[in-house]
Amino acid sequence: MTEMPARAADVVTARPATAVDAADAAAAPPRPLDPPPRLLMGPGPVNAHPRVLRASSVPLIGQYDPAMTAYMAETSALYRTVFGTANRETLLVNGTSRAGIEAALVSLVAPGERVLVPVFGRFGHLLVEIAKRAGAQVHTIEAEWGTVFDPAAIAEAVRRVRPRLLAMVHGDTSTTMLQPLDGLGAVCAEYDALLYADVTASLGGNVFAADAWGIDAATAGLQKCLGGPSGTAPVTFSPRAVEVIGGRRQIEEGLREAGDVENELRIGSNYFDMAMLFDYWGDRRLNHHTEATSALYGARECAALLVEEGMEAAVRRHELHGSALAAGVRGLGLEVFGDQRHRMNNVVAALIPDGVSDAAVRGGMLDEFGIEIGTSFGPLRGRVWRIGAMGYNARKDAVLTTLAALEQVLRGAGAKVPVGGGVEAAREAYQGAAA
Amino acid sequence: MTEMPARAADVVTARPATAVDAADAAAAPPRPLDPPPRLLMGPGPVNAHPRVLRASSVPLIGQYDPAMTAYMAETSALYRTVFGTANRETLLVNGTSRAGIEAALVSLVAPGERVLVPVFGRFGHLLVEIAKRAGAQVHTIEAEWGTVFDPAAIAEAVRRVRPRLLAMVHGDTSTTMLQPLDGLGAVCAEYDALLYADVTASLGGNVFAADAWGIDAATAGLQKCLGGPSGTAPVTFSPRAVEVIGGRRQIEEGLREAGDVENELRIGSNYFDMAMLFDYWGDRRLNHHTEATSALYGARECAALLVEEGMEAAVRRHELHGSALAAGVRGLGLEVFGDQRHRMNNVVAALIPDGVSDAAVRGGMLDEFGIEIGTSFGPLRGRVWRIGAMGYNARKDAVLTTLAALEQVLRGAGAKVPVGGGVEAAREAYQGAAA
Ligand SMILES: Cc1ncc(COP(=O)(O)O)c(C=O)c1O
Ligand SMILES: Cc1ncc(COP(=O)(O)O)c(C=O)c1O
Repeated sequence: MTEMPARAADVVTARPATAVDAADAAAAPPRPLDPPPRLLMGPGPVNAHPRVLRASSVPLIGQYDPAMTAYMAETSALYRTVFGTANRETLLVNGTSRAGIEAALVSLVAPGERVLVPVFGRFGHLLVEIAKRAGAQVHTIEAEWGTVFDPAAIAEAVRRVRPRLLAMVHGDTSTTMLQPLDGLGAVCAEYDALLYADVTASLGGNVFAADAWGIDAATAGLQKCLGGPSGTAPVTFSPRAVEVIGGRRQIEEGLREAGDVENELRIGSNYFDMAMLFDYWGDRRLNHHTEATSALYGARECAALLVEEGMEAAVRRHELHGSALAAGVRGLGLEVFGDQRHRMNNVVAALIPDGVSDAAVRGGMLDEFGIEIGTSFGPLRGRVWRIGAMGYNARKDAVLTTLAALEQVLRGAGAKVPVGGGVEAAREAYQGAAA
Repeated sequence: MTEMPARAADVVTARPATAVDAADAAAAPPRPLDPPPRLLMGPGPVNAHPRVLRASSVPLIGQYDPAMTAYMAETSALYRTVFGTANRETLLVNGTSRAGIEAALVSLVAPGERVLVPVFGRFGHLLVEIAKRAGAQVHTIEAEWGTVFDPAAIAEAVRRVRPRLLAMVHGDTSTTMLQPLDGLGAVCAEYDALLYADVTASLGGNVFAADAWGIDAATAGLQKCLGGPSGTAPVTFSPRAVEVIGGRRQIEEGLREAGDVENELRIGSNYFDMAMLFDYWGDRRLNHHTEATSALYGARECAALLVEEGMEAAVRRHELHGSALAAGVRGLGLEVFGDQRHRMNNVVAALIPDGVSDAAVRGGMLDEFGIEIGTSFGPLRGRVWRIGAMGYNARKDAVLTTLAALEQVLRGAGAKVPVGGGVEAAREAYQGAAA
């Protein structure tokens, strides 16, 4: 067993079955890729859907190939459905979810402008960090971990702070809580604030309706309910957001023609300059980065899977398997953390029983069963396990297997566990839902 | 034929064989991915090596799985060989090549510091743009497109400007020129400047020796000589660069513990904060983004292929096929652009003959033969074709097929072309090299 590094929330401790040791790594060339089989039941990343993996290995085409332009347009259209929006500017940022967050914040907020962040978990702090680095004046309100905000409290803060941007986490994976966003759009519109939502962990597994809720910008990732590999951030921007960003547009040096000038308000990043990304994805197809084609293929497949299933059905599926998982966790005698009326469908936090070793249980799950679960951050580090059922893994067999394994490992770690209690409770939940 | 968008260098004009029309894109769900077969012989992206594509579809593991940590360590070790360095801090940025550039510049240079950029093509302008957005005071010297700088002229500018950072493009794909960098490390060390090199287009196909040349930071991409999909930027930082970046280190809000404080000099970006990326890749494994696992698998395979071949052999291969391609282009009666003593091995710029339509030739190559070649940017847009042989496509069959197709298409477009002249000249070059 290796030492658990400080603050690395999801460290597991088993030995890899097939990968070489880090210490051997200098010996080149390495053996062929052969990662150990894993069932990823933590807070994400989760196993990618096999169709998404296959899409990732489809041969490449050029970035301005008409077929590529068509795939980009298709991808935009699919993500419009996924986000629940008619926003033309619905596209991908080539980076992980936090790249999408940074692209949104740095493009929407100019240095010195006020940003309001209601913080109810680790990812609220991330929004604060990113907004501060973008030069914003950041104001926060805080809710206890395991709870969400009363929307009236957020509205009150908007009235008080008068921010340029209200930046919200929708589902904060660190606490498993889902913040209701409906109604905030109207408040923001009234006070001329833009409304941004980080839906990395919630999109696809929980109701989200960008247009109906008046969301001006939302950003996501693939490695949660979308069932893909991390590394790509689907994003969407409302016409109001696009107008703000348009005011900061600057054609880059090296592409300028007569009449193109520097813009004093230009965005502080080139890579995350959404005005440039709109020009690259739009009809002008103005050169920027080289779209990550394999990643786009994968992202397109993630959205296609959801659209084929139907967004409502996908949310119901996450609700079903999440409820069964929560019931199963309780059936194992564990207490579930946080206000359950506001739990995300796709992840459950179970309090770690006194006297049971976090590392031993997570290590045992991985070592013996090849199943990964996570702990959390900050005040919840070592206090809860986060168990997820999302994307491709929002499946009955994955839920029951995880509960069966957890029963064995918990018992081995000295916990008193009702025999078959987890699987039985989950079975009942499934039967109840079917009735 | 569609209209060629302004300033989109590599737009091609054929109809996709199988992809749906952009206008149909709203109709969901879309047909399965089935891109047209393409031989990508432009300036990159090129076809990925089949082993790299297969690696991209290998099942996922968790970001803190010991197997993942081992793969990350292996990837670092492999890229040390590729970059020619012993730098511990050799890792991946999850974004395209320009994400790597921005991560290096924004981490190395604080607002107000001086950066010197010698510009000899479009990508020098990109360095200027990115450095300016990072708040640097940017000084430039310029060389005519198609030439490179005498290193003495760069040294003179370093003495005059006294920059914090000398930022160099190694191979500028827009002009096909390769700037000699040997000797600049000593100049920079003398004047306490850091030396950065953008090796996106050159690495793997041209000699590059980070340590021997005293390079403090270098960043690359996969879609050129490394034979992978775009979307991942291998980067390396010298101990001197790491020290500078360490002075700007700030643990992010949400992960701080007692004693962790804000840093006035903190880097302006969270995603591109190399100090955080060092902590994430290093022994501490401090949580940052979720490493893009599929992309890492692909990047690791790209490096493994090069290391198996041997870096010198890979450079020789690019030299061989690049010379044969250049000979073939001349054999077709086309003039090659730029100072050929300083051409990158992997790409050739051919002047477009008077009276021949750029769009018709590139469209014909793509439509009839499925072969993509590119034009260039700025002063060279519509004036040259850029034809590349790099990565997986640095192969005799790819070179000869391209030349044979180009002969047919040029003749169809009204050019006078020696019968069989391209293929014949390339054959001779291959025979000469074998002798
Ligand atoms: C020398 C050089 N630098 C940077 C880039 C930008 O790379 P990307 O499009 O992967 O961001 C390119 C792309 O062609 C390049 O050739
Ligand atoms: C709500 C939320 N936001 C942002 C992130 C950061 O995502 P990434 O690691 O893909 O950059 C996560 C990752 O867990 C998340 O759950």
